[in-house]
Amino acid sequence: MSAVPKSLEELLEALRCLPGVGVKSSQRMAYHLLERNRDGAQRLAAALGAAMARIGNCHRCRNFSEEKLCSLCAGESRDEHLLCVVETPSDLAIIEQATGYRGLYFVLLGHLSPLDGMGPAELGLGLLQQRLEEENIQELVIATNPTVEGEATAHYIAGIGRDAGVRATRLAHGVPIGGEIEFIDRSTLAHAFGSRQTID
Amino acid sequence: MSAVPKSLEELLEALRCLPGVGVKSSQRMAYHLLERNRDGAQRLAAALGAAMARIGNCHRCRNFSEEKLCSLCAGESRDEHLLCVVETPSDLAIIEQATGYRGLYFVLLGHLSPLDGMGPAELGLGLLQQRLEEENIQELVIATNPTVEGEATAHYIAGIGRDAGVRATRLAHGVPIGGEIEFIDRSTLAHAFGSRQTID
Repeated sequence: MSAVPKSLEELLEALRCLPGVGVKSSQRMAYHLLERNRDGAQRLAAALGAAMARIGNCHRCRNFSEEKLCSLCAGESRDEHLLCVVETPSDLAIIEQATGYRGLYFVLLGHLSPLDGMGPAELGLGLLQQRLEEENIQELVIATNPTVEGEATAHYIAGIGRDAGVRATRLAHGVPIGGEIEFIDRSTLAHAFGSRQTID
Repeated sequence: MSAVPKSLEELLEALRCLPGVGVKSSQRMAYHLLERNRDGAQRLAAALGAAMARIGNCHRCRNFSEEKLCSLCAGESRDEHLLCVVETPSDLAIIEQATGYRGLYFVLLGHLSPLDGMGPAELGLGLLQQRLEEENIQELVIATNPTVEGEATAHYIAGIGRDAGVRATRLAHGVPIGGEIEFIDRSTLAHAFGSRQTID
């Protein structure tokens, strides 16, 4: 017979849906909450339920939103000449936090991957094409991941931009700031070497 | 204006009640759940709510339990001559998993710490004393933490055992298995040296 109540066993199992949480961390979390922070756990339960129920996707940019239009698309403070294409809402959040980008976004919610059933329709590329044709967009900043699938997706989207007469750009590759030359992979280093810039 | 919906902001904040989860991990977790595992998140919300609502403490050993008596106290498969005293339910869970101990437990839910208002009453030592007098316990295994407060608590409980005529024992101190002599703290090493044992 187990020394662990059934609802605690279910909690241990459920906690493992969190990324990076295995058997040991789930145990640490569950006991911490039960022993020291039951109020916090109740708040977390409510917040999880509310977020999953309320958050859908913006009808214009496909970012997470509780409304039909997200706050970026609904507001008027952004530069409507720029459109940045990202794979996921978390990529969008990181770009918002790290860069001074003030334009609009388009979230693919994935990348081209025919074997997983992810084609142009699943990525909402029809909607993207329509926006490029109807809105006054002058630059398409393609910020998909520098993976094989991300690069293929970027090429495909650049084609859509070309057809609509919109210039497409890509994030620069190079040596990460704070990185050490010794530990940088060869293709990144070769790219950084090839794209070397004049020191002002 | 923030690009993050309000319920997502609340989820990010709520996730930080988990031990070891800060700003970055909470973001990773929230976006992972929203993008890839909404069902898992709903299950987690339900499991959190159920566990916090249902789990109380066993009336006999103070371990987590959904019933008046926990499964260890209610069952008849345990050795009723042994009683192991631990500080927290998580200590109990770890001893159950790691050792072959088959006796009963008593959970203090803390350690003696007068400044924090943790005295003998808060640790349920009256209940412990009663059990020592009424039950047929022959050994009191004191497994409090080897900290100043844990040691003080152990001494206090050993006194209760002495008064009730029950032998009290303490977990052995020594060199951790897999550890290296070079990196072991001096007091542990001195203790291990003093308690050296004959090789069979």
